[in-house]
Amino acid sequence: MAAIEAARLSPSLAAAAFLARRPPPASFPFSLRRSLPLIRVLAISTGGDGRVVALSSSELRRRRGLSSSSSSSSSSSSGAADSATGGDEKLRSLRRLFARPDVAIDAYIVPSQDAHQSEFIAECFMRRAYLTGFTGSAGTAVVTKNKAALWTDGRYFLQAEKELSHEWTLMRSGNHGVPTTSEWLNDVLPSGCRVGIDPFLFSFDASEELKDAISNKNHELVLVRDMNLVDEIWGEARPKPPKEPTRVHDIKYAGIDVPSKLSFIRSQLAENGCDAVVISMLDEVAWLLNMRGSDVPHSPVFYSYLIVEVSTATLFVDSPKVSEVVMELLEKAGVKLKPYEAIVSEVERLAEKGAKLWLDSSSVNAAIVTAFKSSWNRHMKKKGVAGEKIGEKEASSDEPTARGHGVQNEALNAVYNVSPVTLPKSVKNEAEIEGMKNSHLRDAAALSEFWCWLEEEICKSVTLTEVEVAEKLLEFRQKQDGFIETSFDTISGYGANGAIIHYRPTPESCNTVGSDNLFLLDSGAQYIDGTTDITRTVHFGEPSPRHKECFTRVLQGHIALDQAVFPERTPGFVLDVLARSSLWKIGLDYRHGTGHGVGAALNVHEGPQSISYRYGNLTALQKGMIVSNEPGYYEDNSFGIRIENLLLVKELNLANSFGGISYLGFEKLTFVPIQSKLIDLSLLSPSEIKWVNDYHEQVWEKVSPLLSGHSCDWLWKNTRPLLDGTP
Amino acid sequence: MAAIEAARLSPSLAAAAFLARRPPPASFPFSLRRSLPLIRVLAISTGGDGRVVALSSSELRRRRGLSSSSSSSSSSSSGAADSATGGDEKLRSLRRLFARPDVAIDAYIVPSQDAHQSEFIAECFMRRAYLTGFTGSAGTAVVTKNKAALWTDGRYFLQAEKELSHEWTLMRSGNHGVPTTSEWLNDVLPSGCRVGIDPFLFSFDASEELKDAISNKNHELVLVRDMNLVDEIWGEARPKPPKEPTRVHDIKYAGIDVPSKLSFIRSQLAENGCDAVVISMLDEVAWLLNMRGSDVPHSPVFYSYLIVEVSTATLFVDSPKVSEVVMELLEKAGVKLKPYEAIVSEVERLAEKGAKLWLDSSSVNAAIVTAFKSSWNRHMKKKGVAGEKIGEKEASSDEPTARGHGVQNEALNAVYNVSPVTLPKSVKNEAEIEGMKNSHLRDAAALSEFWCWLEEEICKSVTLTEVEVAEKLLEFRQKQDGFIETSFDTISGYGANGAIIHYRPTPESCNTVGSDNLFLLDSGAQYIDGTTDITRTVHFGEPSPRHKECFTRVLQGHIALDQAVFPERTPGFVLDVLARSSLWKIGLDYRHGTGHGVGAALNVHEGPQSISYRYGNLTALQKGMIVSNEPGYYEDNSFGIRIENLLLVKELNLANSFGGISYLGFEKLTFVPIQSKLIDLSLLSPSEIKWVNDYHEQVWEKVSPLLSGHSCDWLWKNTRPLLDGTP
Repeated sequence: MAAIEAARLSPSLAAAAFLARRPPPASFPFSLRRSLPLIRVLAISTGGDGRVVALSSSELRRRRGLSSSSSSSSSSSSGAADSATGGDEKLRSLRRLFARPDVAIDAYIVPSQDAHQSEFIAECFMRRAYLTGFTGSAGTAVVTKNKAALWTDGRYFLQAEKELSHEWTLMRSGNHGVPTTSEWLNDVLPSGCRVGIDPFLFSFDASEELKDAISNKNHELVLVRDMNLVDEIWGEARPKPPKEPTRVHDIKYAGIDVPSKLSFIRSQLAENGCDAVVISMLDEVAWLLNMRGSDVPHSPVFYSYLIVEVSTATLFVDSPKVSEVVMELLEKAGVKLKPYEAIVSEVERLAEKGAKLWLDSSSVNAAIVTAFKSSWNRHMKKKGVAGEKIGEKEASSDEPTARGHGVQNEALNAVYNVSPVTLPKSVKNEAEIEGMKNSHLRDAAALSEFWCWLEEEICKSVTLTEVEVAEKLLEFRQKQDGFIETSFDTISGYGANGAIIHYRPTPESCNTVGSDNLFLLDSGAQYIDGTTDITRTVHFGEPSPRHKECFTRVLQGHIALDQAVFPERTPGFVLDVLARSSLWKIGLDYRHGTGHGVGAALNVHEGPQSISYRYGNLTALQKGMIVSNEPGYYEDNSFGIRIENLLLVKELNLANSFGGISYLGFEKLTFVPIQSKLIDLSLLSPSEIKWVNDYHEQVWEKVSPLLSGHSCDWLWKNTRPLLDGTP
Repeated sequence: MAAIEAARLSPSLAAAAFLARRPPPASFPFSLRRSLPLIRVLAISTGGDGRVVALSSSELRRRRGLSSSSSSSSSSSSGAADSATGGDEKLRSLRRLFARPDVAIDAYIVPSQDAHQSEFIAECFMRRAYLTGFTGSAGTAVVTKNKAALWTDGRYFLQAEKELSHEWTLMRSGNHGVPTTSEWLNDVLPSGCRVGIDPFLFSFDASEELKDAISNKNHELVLVRDMNLVDEIWGEARPKPPKEPTRVHDIKYAGIDVPSKLSFIRSQLAENGCDAVVISMLDEVAWLLNMRGSDVPHSPVFYSYLIVEVSTATLFVDSPKVSEVVMELLEKAGVKLKPYEAIVSEVERLAEKGAKLWLDSSSVNAAIVTAFKSSWNRHMKKKGVAGEKIGEKEASSDEPTARGHGVQNEALNAVYNVSPVTLPKSVKNEAEIEGMKNSHLRDAAALSEFWCWLEEEICKSVTLTEVEVAEKLLEFRQKQDGFIETSFDTISGYGANGAIIHYRPTPESCNTVGSDNLFLLDSGAQYIDGTTDITRTVHFGEPSPRHKECFTRVLQGHIALDQAVFPERTPGFVLDVLARSSLWKIGLDYRHGTGHGVGAALNVHEGPQSISYRYGNLTALQKGMIVSNEPGYYEDNSFGIRIENLLLVKELNLANSFGGISYLGFEKLTFVPIQSKLIDLSLLSPSEIKWVNDYHEQVWEKVSPLLSGHSCDWLWKNTRPLLDGTP
């Protein structure tokens, strides 16, 4: 699955886009951006990732259900319909709330995300979709007393045009001259207005950025804490928060028990002089507690927060989700339960105790961080100390604090740093690696069966749509042991659809998969023991020389990155050029990153590492990390190509070790044939040919034992060496 | 010539090191450094560039002359001798000056550089060498009332140990636990001391960095403006400043006349709302005025400053250097002359006029920048306005200033930006490119004659030292039309000397060039029409498999970079990995950058572009820029390998142009054979073999017309295709 490059469209869109989740210090991206090639700035602005998403019809029904439930809401009729009836009742209701004395705002911003910066979110948190009628995954709505605007990126312009009522203005992010949300607010509001947000839906960093941006026009950022205004108007029709049961992630897959993980986190607390850390990313909570859930699609996580203190740990989760078995695991590890909503009061309690908190302000939401700060200030004032105003930088005191540390100020009371879970989660242990390898082989078996089936069907001239093909792939995967669900919406694009970034097939409108153009299929699965993500591009007929030339160039990039050897402490972006240079040689390129991190039976997109043309992510690739290798090429109105494997970073045992350091390389996790007929052999060097042959030999050896009949024959045929017919 | 990576040893050493000259904004390198591989941090700290410098005996006599003239100075005896006689008279004299009421300091810092951040400096400015007795090119001396310390990097530890008297402490920069100059000052001085510097010898940025660093201990940075304390004690023995005549750089080589260049600079002034710019880099003055000089070795520049105003321009230079012909050129372009020393008073005059100045504070010295600021403040005060204290950030006024701009503060009165000459100088015009190409062919002819001669001599078992070989090379070059001088000290290293970064051969101690190890020769020349820089590594006997393996890996890196194609706006560091990955594959690497900019009949090292593993330089490679391509490998105590050509960045005409942008590549300027017997053919791909054969075919075609006799035969033999004997 192609990594989504950071879409710095608005603070909220940026926060929603993967890889933008942890932006480097503020000055950094700007100084970089100035030097970025124009093409790249555009790519960033449009958030282009070349993806086409095919939805199953059941999924589409489910999604339509969301909007029909909203239109059946007692207090409103749905967006698009309003344009006929002459008014958007939801907007009117929302604006009525602006005037309430406990709200008193002039504008309200409704972002796409939930309180945890999740990539996939539960329906009850799809407030922007409910309010606007626009159901795309990325977008920010801003409503003033007389205006309503929605920002989204190039993938969604057409969809948004269709779905928005006439009262909404579509802001095409990335297009020339289109302002950011804060620029727009500064433009349309008279000086000195109050701009409201739900502080749970913005990371603290994003809220600070927003506050700074609108302060240019003397606007005040108002954190509307006690209610989400969209939830207010959604009322009874709002879906209930998910209450799916959680489960224990078996130690044979997790590798390290919870007490050991907690003990590592506590050693980090000690090293940083902290008393507690708030973990708010859902995959981090799941990883740390060896738990899994199913509150959102595609990611085995559950809505929760975790606070780890020096001698205790508290999981904030709705208790019905926790079975006895899970409870036993938690009790053994000394983890107490509190209700999900209790997170804020607990953070306030810690502030009152004078605890020093570790907060990853790029992911922890503004509600939590500001609650901690205010509570600490109230506490200081109560002790007779001149406290700080919220959001201001310093307060000092000559009086010893509760903790007796002498002079202490707010800066000393919290450490703003990347979560201590981020790195250990991304560096996989032996058991996690084992699970990833095993699940990839089962996934490869399912894919072989699928490709064998599809080739036969196309050969028989059976008419199959992009969506039907994706549904059949799901069937093959479902037969595999330990299958749970897809790890993202399958991207199934035939011909020109493979190249249109904005394309979103539906059963009603999508293409048939034919035999005279390329078919790009990017899919993945969640298994009990691992997470997969693979793209293959195939042709069922006679590929053109252009298809072969472009495919081969992409393949050469894929091979070059796969074979890379590099010294330890090399950031991923250093390697990005290896995947691009074969395309650059003929003036081609692709507008997305080359690799993203992947969780072990967790999120299909995870940080902190990446392989990208953007230079902002300085995280070194480390032994045990998993990254995707997915160069591509997209020819508008014609075809799309992407070849994606997952790779494990491993330490190499080389003849030399200059500088006395380790040298690292990659081990493939994905074992599915690459279509030979798309390769222009005249472009490959002998060592590239050897790479393909060696890979296919491995594919045959590893996957054929899991297959029989036609699909085993298919695998045999598709793993024969290039050129001479013998391995 | 290998690019010297930034040695961030101390502000002054850092300023001296090429590529550190224009550090990115302060927060940037630090955030980068934390993520750099250890090996790289070490490489940076030691300033390692793998160079070995062979001095001609005449040069050595000249250099010894410097120290003997200093030891014959009336007021002192030279450093090393003092350890016997029990005291360093120079230090005593210097400390006596500390107490003078117009000085009144507790410590004095003596850096290596001149007032222009030059890489090569005139003898009269070698104050650190005079004071300390240490004659290495990089180092900073710091003297307090009772301590004296010298910082230098790993290249010079042995030399410094020999040359420093016992009163000096050698600070081995880059070694674990060795403090920076400011850390040391904060450590050894009691709080609140006055630390003096000559503000002409520090860029404004470096002086600010120093001021900040020592303010931690409440020390004050004192700019001792009116005299250089070392010059005071040097007295009559101090060499006179160079008075070499300047010359006109012919328009047929310069390509653009001075009025056109000035007019471009003025358009830049207008765009930035500035009234004048101070140009202080010597190569920038020379480029802008189409003048050349010979005040320093290796660079055809002359000591001067230039101020370009909207309608006038003033060259600050000692008038005897300006011949009638040069004067005519200057007059035609409307450039007036003033004495070199008048720069400060002229800048003060501009401040009084209320002129807004463009200052490149990374290169313009602190004397000039602070004079401008103080004068402006005095001017504001005189007008009854609350001015700013020097070094503080803001002053404001409601009264219109002399320029009638209403409220104006110091920040509005100067633009601190990269010099407007930097980029146009680095992007070569057609005539400059033509001159570079032509001079490279003559240089190639000289090198062919040299290599032919050397091979014959070694074959006849003639004993030749590294220094003698370098002198002979100079003879061959001297015979070429338009030859002026070497562009840097020739690096001539046989066997283990090719690998020792610290090695500095002298006629007395250097090695003989033999036939059972590798010989690395890095040299270059200044011609009337261009500047060259080339490294070849050869073996006159039977290379070992190890020699061939390492040489071939280096060659593969050289070829990969040479063949790179990349989109416009790509910074050089993106390509660095291409030159390293063949070495990384077997666990090898090199501790220097891969490419530096080269001037056209100017400095052999110039910015702003570079190709390096450091990620700090975001300057894009642009059509018309020249860079070196010089990967290497150095095996301690054994051998050194480097293969260096100069490359011109050119626009390519490709079949595609994805994103509607230009794609760039390189054109070779250097045409000298690469020794075939060092190539392990089994490692090369067919396309790499083709690269070598194509290159050698070009070498033969371009250079053979300039040769005859033995050297023409030598060129024929050394340009035969690999493998099959036919082109």
